[in-house]
Amino acid sequence: MCFYPYNLVAASVPFTFDCIMSKRYQSLGVSAGKEDVHHAIRNLDKGLFEKAFCKVLPDFTGFDSSYVNFIHADTAGTKTSLAYLDWKETNDFSIWERIAQDALVMNLDDLACVGCFDNIIISSTIGRNKHLIPGKVIEHLIQGTENFVSKMNEFGIQIHSGGGETADVGDIVRTIDVGITAFGRLQKQNLVINKIEAGDLIVGLASFGQSIYESAYNSGIGSNGLTAARHDVLDKAYANTEESYAPQTLKEYIYTGSFHLSDQFVTNGQSYRVGDLLLSPTRTYLPLLKSFVMNNLNTIHGIIHCTGGAQTKVKKFIEPLRIVKNNLFQIPPVFELIRTQSLCSPQELYEVYNMGHRMEVYTNTESADVLMKLAADYNIEAKIIGHVEKAKQPEVLIQSELGEFLYI
Amino acid sequence: MCFYPYNLVAASVPFTFDCIMSKRYQSLGVSAGKEDVHHAIRNLDKGLFEKAFCKVLPDFTGFDSSYVNFIHADTAGTKTSLAYLDWKETNDFSIWERIAQDALVMNLDDLACVGCFDNIIISSTIGRNKHLIPGKVIEHLIQGTENFVSKMNEFGIQIHSGGGETADVGDIVRTIDVGITAFGRLQKQNLVINKIEAGDLIVGLASFGQSIYESAYNSGIGSNGLTAARHDVLDKAYANTEESYAPQTLKEYIYTGSFHLSDQFVTNGQSYRVGDLLLSPTRTYLPLLKSFVMNNLNTIHGIIHCTGGAQTKVKKFIEPLRIVKNNLFQIPPVFELIRTQSLCSPQELYEVYNMGHRMEVYTNTESADVLMKLAADYNIEAKIIGHVEKAKQPEVLIQSELGEFLYI
Repeated sequence: MCFYPYNLVAASVPFTFDCIMSKRYQSLGVSAGKEDVHHAIRNLDKGLFEKAFCKVLPDFTGFDSSYVNFIHADTAGTKTSLAYLDWKETNDFSIWERIAQDALVMNLDDLACVGCFDNIIISSTIGRNKHLIPGKVIEHLIQGTENFVSKMNEFGIQIHSGGGETADVGDIVRTIDVGITAFGRLQKQNLVINKIEAGDLIVGLASFGQSIYESAYNSGIGSNGLTAARHDVLDKAYANTEESYAPQTLKEYIYTGSFHLSDQFVTNGQSYRVGDLLLSPTRTYLPLLKSFVMNNLNTIHGIIHCTGGAQTKVKKFIEPLRIVKNNLFQIPPVFELIRTQSLCSPQELYEVYNMGHRMEVYTNTESADVLMKLAADYNIEAKIIGHVEKAKQPEVLIQSELGEFLYI
Repeated sequence: MCFYPYNLVAASVPFTFDCIMSKRYQSLGVSAGKEDVHHAIRNLDKGLFEKAFCKVLPDFTGFDSSYVNFIHADTAGTKTSLAYLDWKETNDFSIWERIAQDALVMNLDDLACVGCFDNIIISSTIGRNKHLIPGKVIEHLIQGTENFVSKMNEFGIQIHSGGGETADVGDIVRTIDVGITAFGRLQKQNLVINKIEAGDLIVGLASFGQSIYESAYNSGIGSNGLTAARHDVLDKAYANTEESYAPQTLKEYIYTGSFHLSDQFVTNGQSYRVGDLLLSPTRTYLPLLKSFVMNNLNTIHGIIHCTGGAQTKVKKFIEPLRIVKNNLFQIPPVFELIRTQSLCSPQELYEVYNMGHRMEVYTNTESADVLMKLAADYNIEAKIIGHVEKAKQPEVLIQSELGEFLYI
């Protein structure tokens, strides 16, 4: 996300976070409220529009008051550690092409939330431990980037690859870190600024399935909560791969699950390879959102990318309102896997994982219908997952198959 | 550097590299020729001008054929590991402000080589191991960034801070990784494209001393070769700080020096704290180069930032010519320290460390005089360190106090 001038990934739990998992979260080094980083950035400029999903900058590069600029950074996070484990087991280098997509989509789908789909230039920063990561991995990361860019171009999304940096920093990086920074320039009149209000409907766009631009089933995992998911789902045997986790992690929290990556997870009569579920590349919504935003700008009250904070992420972008989510997607297999293996409480699951939709649009009935029809054209499941009510404070109410949870 | 679409930091030794140090380099995980990464990027677009120091992109963001775009990524590399060691010893958080400057200058001084000094937007990507790096470190990194940006603005360099990303990724990062990506937009008519030719004079700009915009003596170390420097100079006692290096490194190459960071290094009757010498922030040449380039564009044949490859870096940007460097600066204390502690051969020292000047300008006698006078105004030592001759292949000849070395 980039509501804050500095993004806070892994800050997946809000300040009110107070649950038995806190200690474990701290031990996994993914932190709870990240109050320390919030404190560090407290004085930084928030950009032109505080409720914008990404920091909006004046047109510093074009000097045209009718344009704005964005620069946005994100990484594949600790999903690279999971990729490393699966790659070591399978020797399948294409895993790294999916990681490139993870880093790209974490960026570009944030920019989509402010209406920026074109005039985007990307640059990568790859830090590797050369002792463990051969050049062929870099080759597949680059290939994955080029593949994604050309696929998006087919669907009318103009992304330009500016190259990047590859650093051999084994004294800093255990295995490999993959980051992307994107620069975008947009006409101010095409900006999407969140102005969510009571009465809005919430259309959820499925994070799982197989869209027309995906070559295989996508589990919907995305790139958030992967530290917890990896340790919760995978068998203690992976603790022997010491380069895959921080040595400061308490032993009792390291790889506490019962699965190997090559195992099958069976749910509702369907069988899935665990490694494939956890390493599905983050789905992009760029083609769908571009088509929708172009023709429905005036009726869009908000677009939220459910990343850090997951289903509660929207809380950072609203006035005193209650976001009611009472018609969520049925929990897809990957989150069913995590739920059954996880030490997380159900309440926490919705704060860490998207649980079925990673993108949500706040709008009226007519535009909601348009969006759902459009989504069908891309073979992306979409439905009204909730609505917005008046309230005395910003809060999110989830009523789901796992129970009822209020986040304040 | 960014001659290649993907920068190759730590690629400090050319393909002809063949010396006793190779094995040690491999063990330190900083590689020699980095042939594997070169292979990975072999098919990538090189930009509009192959001899440009940074990859030049069309104006994808402004659609004006009289402009070009740059996006450039770089990091503080393993200098953060050294900062970590000194910070642990001294609890001096201001060390992190210097690291922010390192990451910034490694980017911005590359962009200066193509004449891009304005309309620059920067974004940071910080990955930390929260077990070891508190939020206060992030605060000082941000402070260092803001300080540098405002100092440069005082000197007419317009840099805009777009924020960035702070990720808790202890499963990936041992301590902390600090990267910067910069986007720039420039009028094509102000581009500096390397066209170095026989007869050019080479003006070297000192990497050490105290310019009018620096608050203390700068050793000139920059941000290259810090993995080797750290292991060569520091005492074996630092091997106990296991988070400061890759566990795959051969034991005999880990911290083989005889100094602690708090020790004094005495040379020519002067005494310097070792930690201060090794952690001087990378000097920027932006104000000086902007003043010079603005009024001497037509007589500039090349500007080379002596980063990865150091004094041989220029070889990647020339036609068959001999670069003769026969009047280098006297080796400043920090490189004297490294030389006396290092396992490097003298020939290799010039390929890894700038040894006294980190920026060099190729031009004629008149402009060389202008540049040297201008440098004096900024209290930056400058002198003609060599010249360019005809040759059958691109080569660099160094004749120095350490001997005569030919790099082909």
